[in-house]
Amino acid sequence: MTLTRDDFIALDKRDPLAPFAEEFDIPEGLIYFDGNSLGAMPKAAMARAKDVIEQEWGTDLIKSWNKAGWFTLVEKLGNKVAKLIGADEGEVIYADATGLNVYKLVSAALEQRPDRKIIVMEGSNFPTDNYMVQGLIRQLGRGHEIRFAEDGEIMDAIRDDVAVVCLTHVHYKTGHLHDMTAITRKAHNVGALTIWDLCHSAGALPVDLNGSNVDFALGCTYKYLNGGPGSQSFMFVAKRHQGIAVQPLTGWWGHDKPFGFERDYRPRKDIWQFSTGTQPIVSLALSEVGLDIFMRANMDEIRKKSLKLCDLFIELIDERLKGYDFKIVTPREHSRRGSQVSIASKNGFAIMQALIADNVIGDFRAPDIMRFGFTPLYVSYVNVWDAVEKLKIIMEEGRWDRPEFKQVGAVT
Amino acid sequence: MTLTRDDFIALDKRDPLAPFAEEFDIPEGLIYFDGNSLGAMPKAAMARAKDVIEQEWGTDLIKSWNKAGWFTLVEKLGNKVAKLIGADEGEVIYADATGLNVYKLVSAALEQRPDRKIIVMEGSNFPTDNYMVQGLIRQLGRGHEIRFAEDGEIMDAIRDDVAVVCLTHVHYKTGHLHDMTAITRKAHNVGALTIWDLCHSAGALPVDLNGSNVDFALGCTYKYLNGGPGSQSFMFVAKRHQGIAVQPLTGWWGHDKPFGFERDYRPRKDIWQFSTGTQPIVSLALSEVGLDIFMRANMDEIRKKSLKLCDLFIELIDERLKGYDFKIVTPREHSRRGSQVSIASKNGFAIMQALIADNVIGDFRAPDIMRFGFTPLYVSYVNVWDAVEKLKIIMEEGRWDRPEFKQVGAVT
Repeated sequence: MTLTRDDFIALDKRDPLAPFAEEFDIPEGLIYFDGNSLGAMPKAAMARAKDVIEQEWGTDLIKSWNKAGWFTLVEKLGNKVAKLIGADEGEVIYADATGLNVYKLVSAALEQRPDRKIIVMEGSNFPTDNYMVQGLIRQLGRGHEIRFAEDGEIMDAIRDDVAVVCLTHVHYKTGHLHDMTAITRKAHNVGALTIWDLCHSAGALPVDLNGSNVDFALGCTYKYLNGGPGSQSFMFVAKRHQGIAVQPLTGWWGHDKPFGFERDYRPRKDIWQFSTGTQPIVSLALSEVGLDIFMRANMDEIRKKSLKLCDLFIELIDERLKGYDFKIVTPREHSRRGSQVSIASKNGFAIMQALIADNVIGDFRAPDIMRFGFTPLYVSYVNVWDAVEKLKIIMEEGRWDRPEFKQVGAVT
Repeated sequence: MTLTRDDFIALDKRDPLAPFAEEFDIPEGLIYFDGNSLGAMPKAAMARAKDVIEQEWGTDLIKSWNKAGWFTLVEKLGNKVAKLIGADEGEVIYADATGLNVYKLVSAALEQRPDRKIIVMEGSNFPTDNYMVQGLIRQLGRGHEIRFAEDGEIMDAIRDDVAVVCLTHVHYKTGHLHDMTAITRKAHNVGALTIWDLCHSAGALPVDLNGSNVDFALGCTYKYLNGGPGSQSFMFVAKRHQGIAVQPLTGWWGHDKPFGFERDYRPRKDIWQFSTGTQPIVSLALSEVGLDIFMRANMDEIRKKSLKLCDLFIELIDERLKGYDFKIVTPREHSRRGSQVSIASKNGFAIMQALIADNVIGDFRAPDIMRFGFTPLYVSYVNVWDAVEKLKIIMEEGRWDRPEFKQVGAVT
């Protein structure tokens, strides 16, 4: 039976997550399918910003390090993220940026496997993870090597010469989802450690780090977690590695006695060792607003709606845009995908620009991928219908085929 | 002739920097001598925050990376800082945190001197610099060593086995100022490179990095530059080292073609190589407000007033608090000090708490130092008189000698 717009309106009516949309500020008429790149702004963000800037900085000034709890935000926010990724209290710290945290964790993990030289990574991953490890390898100069493996080749690449398996759980471009449990088990079977990058999974689907026996993890908070542009990253270190694995960016916040101002570094034995030092507090404080919304949402409901949104989007593309050069590269099986749908198309760049001009925001990733991210807390079912309808008209009218949509560098 | 309060009022009346005080939001009645720890809030900060949060994040969303120039803020703000520290355009980038930037620069510099193992540092420096270098040394495992030298021992420590001299220009605790030109010359004479930490000098006094032929520098922006709590740090790399020295935290922003999403890292040849990746944008954008005030202020006038404020504070302490256990540890010679006055006192902690309770904010650094920072853009001459007057009464009445002022962990 062919779907109609009314079917989507009906789905919205009985969506238990629908009320969350009111907590986000999406401009009128905009269909925002780019929350996998920059999450939308929670309406409560501005009030929090006012408080941290005017009251905590402007009025309380230096006292806010204690009075407003600035110094312990990295721990407090870490413990909130822990609830979303299957970690225990004291296993997550919220500090620094994604790339830096990859560097820290890989360095700490390699030290635990001094006789092994191989790091398994996915070559087509978002490059900053690979770049950071390449920088580390070059700096160490001890003959470490990345063994690049693509989806489908990873299990075979995990052999008994592997020190560390460092993978992104959901692929930024295709949206494919790795089997965290199986890969971690294989890694442990050959004596390797695992580092999971959760940039595209934290807040997008249930993650169970301890259930999968993961060693280390990290992820960003400005995508599905709505932390604000460039908000800090988080790091997970399983309790069994704390006090043993040591990361090299040994700033004063990771010292056993930070306010002792001792001359020599002595690592703290807990998750704080993975922090470094003073964080940009306004951005940090602001990102708690997004996390607090997730503290009230049910991750299983989010996953259920995410899969349904993606399924319907795929179904409509199949049905209503038949015959166009659209190839869905995201796996169709639920167990194999995150919360985005990626479509390869020769004219993908221009088509995406035409969509953006028509108030449907997705993004483009070279050479030919149109990405559509689905964030169940503020994307509705009818958004899916309307976006595909707009895409259909753009294709039928050939409206993407204009010079202004072919200029690279407009919106990426 | 003995000074009176009227003398200080008269000084304020003819102070050319006095109008700047109106641009900062200092609570009524508060005397704030802690701008060397957390700079005061510019009144324009909230409007900028509203713009970046509500308009750029909330409304323009992902488009803001280009439309609002988020991606190039690190370069734009770096070029503003360059003007304050004697650097040229393209020599400064504004990203990441102080400690991380120490790590990057020391790692990059050590690679340029592969046959040398010694790093000269000041053991009593704010510890994060030393800690970061200790973490790097441990990680590299190549037998590098820190040669700790205190003020007065530094020139002798710089011998022909030294790879890098890494010093903080103004000491966080005592306020002593190193001779950047002489030390850099000595370092170069023995074939070493220099890294200057400007945390307590950028915005506090004129700095001329290129005039002193400095190789690398870094500094924070949340103290004298009023960037907001924990705002990002800046890094200077002299043009002659760009494209040659490479830092190891090789994130995608430092790649030659960041949006090419290539698998392998290829360093950019300019200052961007020293950036890493996505920054917390709200904090970053907000810190431009403080910098913009400095773009209109005259650094020589700032230095002149800073010296005068410190001179008067010292003079009043000498004159009006004679007989108390107060030892001024900041050098009295202008050429030897930054923009703070530090007083050692056995009961320093409790005395500082009593001062804070009386609305004079300085801070305490273990074991016995009371620090008073002077920020000429918003500290007035009469503030100096009033603060000393309050201190005098606290001492005369013995008001510091109360249990509530002896609890460690209150305000530090």
